[in-house]
Amino acid sequence: MSTTTEQFRNGVDTATLFATLDAVKGQNEIAKFQFRAENTWVSGVHSRSRISGYYGAMQEMNHAHETVLDADHPPVLVGNDNGPTPVEFLLHAIAACLTAGIGNIAAARGVNLTKVSSTVEGDIDLLGIFGLSEGRVRNGYQDMRVTFHIEGDADEETLRGIVEQSRQRSAVYDVLTNPTPVSVEAVTR
Amino acid sequence: MSTTTEQFRNGVDTATLFATLDAVKGQNEIAKFQFRAENTWVSGVHSRSRISGYYGAMQEMNHAHETVLDADHPPVLVGNDNGPTPVEFLLHAIAACLTAGIGNIAAARGVNLTKVSSTVEGDIDLLGIFGLSEGRVRNGYQDMRVTFHIEGDADEETLRGIVEQSRQRSAVYDVLTNPTPVSVEAVTR
Repeated sequence: MSTTTEQFRNGVDTATLFATLDAVKGQNEIAKFQFRAENTWVSGVHSRSRISGYYGAMQEMNHAHETVLDADHPPVLVGNDNGPTPVEFLLHAIAACLTAGIGNIAAARGVNLTKVSSTVEGDIDLLGIFGLSEGRVRNGYQDMRVTFHIEGDADEETLRGIVEQSRQRSAVYDVLTNPTPVSVEAVTR
Repeated sequence: MSTTTEQFRNGVDTATLFATLDAVKGQNEIAKFQFRAENTWVSGVHSRSRISGYYGAMQEMNHAHETVLDADHPPVLVGNDNGPTPVEFLLHAIAACLTAGIGNIAAARGVNLTKVSSTVEGDIDLLGIFGLSEGRVRNGYQDMRVTFHIEGDADEETLRGIVEQSRQRSAVYDVLTNPTPVSVEAVTR
């Protein structure tokens, strides 16, 4: 196997990945990040977010491209279906976070992946947000399930171990499964 | 004020909103929803989700349009910046959920909104996910802050009350601030 192939296993630049970890070990401040989104109400329950700038590695940074995301409700929930519902973005976030970890961890462990796909389901009883449950039903998802299909040049135990390690190191999994402080302030003028 | 204007206050079809609440009161089963996403790994830490079908109102449903969402890491986190990071989608989700609630609640309370925008910040110390903190640093956001700017034909107390009510009824706020069960399974073959 060529050096190039080893450096870019699974499309992951492992040499740079390990160099980044070494740099962070030497200066922990590099690891402090702040991500940001700007949201604007359009009409009804339709809003639009823009994601571009963030802070990290001790400096202000910008993504290569600004991302614009619309959210709305479908007609059955009295919206105009201009985008997914807000809670559906949580499904993408958990799948993407776990998948990113799988790519990195497999590369670090010398495993070549050939396929990773996942389905995410989230069960929610809207009696909660409708205010019709007298507090019996929570507002958010009652249960979320992520099912991966993963294939590569390793045995089943190794592949399962990669998924499990990704779960243990996932930022989104942590935010969903554990309490995260969220402050909500309003400025009126 | 015309009947039409009242029915569509803030772009919200309040007549249909109240009719929907009445229907759900009469048959709670209507409120049980399941949202879904399908994610496919592309390369490295880049993956792509598709959001289209869901279950709700006692039937299989589809959004008017399928939504395709890419997630990646920026170069500073050893990715190729093909989309926002997974954790940035959480910022959009909380802003969009609270904003949808504000639109609905203001309409229900007879308040005409003229502007709603928000900024969301999420602080994260990547020592956690890098595995360099010996468990001292959590994987996810340490703090998230949503700041709304809201304007409309109501006094400050009323506008603040709408934001507060939206927080209390937000599905995403609940998922972020309280523990949500997330199962992660792997199928290998």
